[in-house]
Amino acid sequence: MDPIYITELFGTFFFAMSGALAAAEHNEEHDWFGAGFIGFVTAIGGGSLRDILLGSYPLIWVGNVRFLYAILLGILLAGLFYNTLLKLRRTFLLFDTLGISLFTILGTEKALRYGISSEVAAMMGMFTAVMGGVVRDTLLNEVPVIFKKEIYASACLMGASIYLLLINFGVERNSSFFASILVVVIIRILALKFKLSLPKFKRG
Amino acid sequence: MDPIYITELFGTFFFAMSGALAAAEHNEEHDWFGAGFIGFVTAIGGGSLRDILLGSYPLIWVGNVRFLYAILLGILLAGLFYNTLLKLRRTFLLFDTLGISLFTILGTEKALRYGISSEVAAMMGMFTAVMGGVVRDTLLNEVPVIFKKEIYASACLMGASIYLLLINFGVERNSSFFASILVVVIIRILALKFKLSLPKFKRG
Amino acid sequence: MDPIYITELFGTFFFAMSGALAAAEHNEEHDWFGAGFIGFVTAIGGGSLRDILLGSYPLIWVGNVRFLYAILLGILLAGLFYNTLLKLRRTFLLFDTLGISLFTILGTEKALRYGISSEVAAMMGMFTAVMGGVVRDTLLNEVPVIFKKEIYASACLMGASIYLLLINFGVERNSSFFASILVVVIIRILALKFKLSLPKFKRG
Repeated sequence: MDPIYITELFGTFFFAMSGALAAAEHNEEHDWFGAGFIGFVTAIGGGSLRDILLGSYPLIWVGNVRFLYAILLGILLAGLFYNTLLKLRRTFLLFDTLGISLFTILGTEKALRYGISSEVAAMMGMFTAVMGGVVRDTLLNEVPVIFKKEIYASACLMGASIYLLLINFGVERNSSFFASILVVVIIRILALKFKLSLPKFKRG
Repeated sequence: MDPIYITELFGTFFFAMSGALAAAEHNEEHDWFGAGFIGFVTAIGGGSLRDILLGSYPLIWVGNVRFLYAILLGILLAGLFYNTLLKLRRTFLLFDTLGISLFTILGTEKALRYGISSEVAAMMGMFTAVMGGVVRDTLLNEVPVIFKKEIYASACLMGASIYLLLINFGVERNSSFFASILVVVIIRILALKFKLSLPKFKRG
Repeated sequence: MDPIYITELFGTFFFAMSGALAAAEHNEEHDWFGAGFIGFVTAIGGGSLRDILLGSYPLIWVGNVRFLYAILLGILLAGLFYNTLLKLRRTFLLFDTLGISLFTILGTEKALRYGISSEVAAMMGMFTAVMGGVVRDTLLNEVPVIFKKEIYASACLMGASIYLLLINFGVERNSSFFASILVVVIIRILALKFKLSLPKFKRG
């Protein structure tokens, strides 16, 4: 089977699991439906927004029921192994970083197929990766992740830009793909390790 | 005239009325525009989201101006008879239950016409019924109804699943329709009467 | 070049700038990405929602990268001249009033081209003007502007209605255009000067 398809399914599974865990952490009163709903929108929010903005139908999870099953599995495991999974925070952070890197580049590639400019394609890639989290936080009445995390969405934007630069310079697709994913991962790791952040918008 | 069309118009009218009342209860400072806007999004939110996710154009209220007039009438009556209507809470709860049951099954049917899987169609049916309320609560900065009400969206999901099961087993459409609406209504009444709730996601 | 196109580009630039400023005022901790993201959704939110509701693809900023550059320029200037710009509040209010007037009528015109009723077209015009601000406020967890500002969205709705009336009575397009923009501006100025507001929905 197509390795990209497998990876997308796994990414969707993972985002659903982490979304459900985040919901339960935010409010311990959530029942299975509430936590599951949050897991669902976290998993499909970014890709759905991208496809709606592009007018690309059918949406992936609407056209292929396997994505729904991947999400349900993620929610189920999150509920059954809640306490164990919460202890794996560091592992999660790694998966999240891998997930947003991958979704950024895949989203950018998909957008390019619609004949739009590189600049807008990079934004679509970033949306794919982070907007599920934004919808999740908005539903939970929390400050959206992209406004508080150290260099999160901006790392995606940088990765997408590098991918587009490499492609435009004629670098082969697979090399560009892995190089730009590596860039996002490295930026995220450096930002976390050295507590890097972007300059404040409002100066002193 | 088509009885389904009449029912949809009436359901839209009712959701607009209850949305405007909820807005005014939440914040007594709302003016006619503010309460009306909330009534509007409550009425069209669920169906519009379903149609945007399906790529089904034109949206019902965009293509047929009568839905807009049903909404305006609902808002007008809500404002004129505010105090009287608030006393009719129990009646409203009944109408709301009927409304979400009906919109769930109609939404599921519409989704099926787009050739999607039963599982996704059930989710679309549930979205049709409850997402207007979610947008309403998000605009009011409240915890969305689906996260706090006793077995609300999950009752819709169960009703939609039963509808799809019956249809798949070859039961005639009208019988399936009324049976599954009855299921949602009964689940909701039992949940309210016995204060049933789904199991918590996070176990003590 | 087309004067309407130039005006749209300038309006987008202005909304991005005012959105980024509003973000930084709301929370001084916003970094460049956070304030810029808010500026971006403020600028494109209304028009994108209108086009998604109409099913009109490609979205303007997706199809034409100049809108993205207008937005980036607005964000850049907002960050560089933050303190100076905040002192120009009165000027901003004027620009905002001009901006929403113009976007209302342009949005109404675009909606009409999709063969929808005048009533729905007027709502689409109002959405074009104010929904970017609603998304901005929802992301900032603030009460959306349309629920607190003196006769804001309702002024747009009145302007759109007058435009449609004039057109229907056979008045020439350009005269209708400027007359209805003037109506919105005058209503807004009167509302601000005399602190006019719509009647409360709930009567004491």
